[in-house]
Amino acid sequence: MIDTLSEHSCFGGTQGFYKHHSNAIGLPMKFSVYQPPQALAEGAPALPVLLYLAGLTCTEETFMIKAGAQQYAAQHGLILVAPDTSPRDTGIPEADAAWDFGTAAGFYLDAIQAPWHKHWRMESYLTLELLPLVLDRFKGREDRVGIFGHSMGGHGALTLALKYPELFHSVSAFAPIAAPSQCPWGRKAFTGYLGADTSSWRRHDATELVNDGGYCPPILIDQGLGDKFLADQLHPHLFENACRQMGQPLTLRRHAGYDHGYYFISTFMRDHIEHHAATLKATP
Amino acid sequence: MIDTLSEHSCFGGTQGFYKHHSNAIGLPMKFSVYQPPQALAEGAPALPVLLYLAGLTCTEETFMIKAGAQQYAAQHGLILVAPDTSPRDTGIPEADAAWDFGTAAGFYLDAIQAPWHKHWRMESYLTLELLPLVLDRFKGREDRVGIFGHSMGGHGALTLALKYPELFHSVSAFAPIAAPSQCPWGRKAFTGYLGADTSSWRRHDATELVNDGGYCPPILIDQGLGDKFLADQLHPHLFENACRQMGQPLTLRRHAGYDHGYYFISTFMRDHIEHHAATLKATP
Repeated sequence: MIDTLSEHSCFGGTQGFYKHHSNAIGLPMKFSVYQPPQALAEGAPALPVLLYLAGLTCTEETFMIKAGAQQYAAQHGLILVAPDTSPRDTGIPEADAAWDFGTAAGFYLDAIQAPWHKHWRMESYLTLELLPLVLDRFKGREDRVGIFGHSMGGHGALTLALKYPELFHSVSAFAPIAAPSQCPWGRKAFTGYLGADTSSWRRHDATELVNDGGYCPPILIDQGLGDKFLADQLHPHLFENACRQMGQPLTLRRHAGYDHGYYFISTFMRDHIEHHAATLKATP
Repeated sequence: MIDTLSEHSCFGGTQGFYKHHSNAIGLPMKFSVYQPPQALAEGAPALPVLLYLAGLTCTEETFMIKAGAQQYAAQHGLILVAPDTSPRDTGIPEADAAWDFGTAAGFYLDAIQAPWHKHWRMESYLTLELLPLVLDRFKGREDRVGIFGHSMGGHGALTLALKYPELFHSVSAFAPIAAPSQCPWGRKAFTGYLGADTSSWRRHDATELVNDGGYCPPILIDQGLGDKFLADQLHPHLFENACRQMGQPLTLRRHAGYDHGYYFISTFMRDHIEHHAATLKATP
């Protein structure tokens, strides 16, 4: 059962906001979908799907209202999907104590530590529940699914693409947390959700996944050099080194002056959509 | 004195947020400016300026983060400017009592009724203070200034263009309040800011300004037919009739399905920027 919260015409398609009960999370979850004009015609074919994972503090609305992606999705005939960034209204008092942990900071993994393990199951939610649901409801092609994201969501996109190559056929990221085990945001999240035993962290760290032999389609990453989180939190050079050593194809572009926000993301959105469209539409 | 609140690289230009003390308003005011790449080069020429007025409840950020205009401004070499929608922190308790009057609902006029007359002077602020300030600070061409806006800001754009043809050389609007004297939003605002004597209202009503012989450059208006405010609040047909009778050039496009929000606005932003660029760049 999917409740439609609102739908809006946008670039000839439909921008929608939806809510459903998630079994994986155990709570209601919101998500947004952009259906391009190609999806709305009578007898329309199934279309490729591109999943976007947002960063800390964001919701299912952030990408759709700020990134300017719909015009390119309309051009290429891609369905865009954006989930929320964590469970909400969980009744866990500590969940709202920090902006970088708990609510709106799910890090796209399944927590194993109490009290988070009950609801903070974003990895299972996305791969086992939301993706099949939107493929079915919005007539997406399961053999043409891409994933991308920003910051915490860039971490999510890279790790999920590396862990589930059978689910995701194209991947890119904006300013991802590329080596979370080695930065304050990542260490805080992993300690809280996974515990102090760092052996469980490797499966949620894009750099370690590549080091451990993970492989996914050629990756596009854009990174602003005016990003205040670059030095301490993002560490794209560590991911770049791992990809180089392991033979994982990566295009990492560094842009002078650009910061961590959506003015940066919107500037390079066209390139990312084209990166995904080229791969997804080339699939036989 | 202009304080820079933040600046962000965006489509090769700079998206900035600024604050200054307004003499017209008697309080600090915020505004935003997008400088396209053409403005940033050494020895750059003065560029055309396009002023955007936002709708009820919005701020100086709304247009810049939601409308997707920067890419087209970058393409055409236009400076974009967006003011806030009213004075803020005025100390008037009634100012925050409603979402459609007072704070964030300045209606781009000078109030003459107490207690609003002291600070609610958006018309003087825009025409006498902000426009000269940004032309000077950001090197805009005063002979190439356009104005557009949405809803309450569409009302502002139409009325100011009709009243100040010497200041504004191109004009357009998204879903404007086109005959405010004849709708609930307008009557509430005009009664509060201008008083019950409706004779003072005509100079702030786009339809009446045209009826009274006002004339401005050819107008582009886009209106969604799924707009929930169309029937009661916007009345584009009254403005259309006035323009037809008085010979004011108007292109009014009605779009099936589109509503009142920024998914509608962003869809047609390219056409509006091109409308302004064609006029402003053709000026000798």
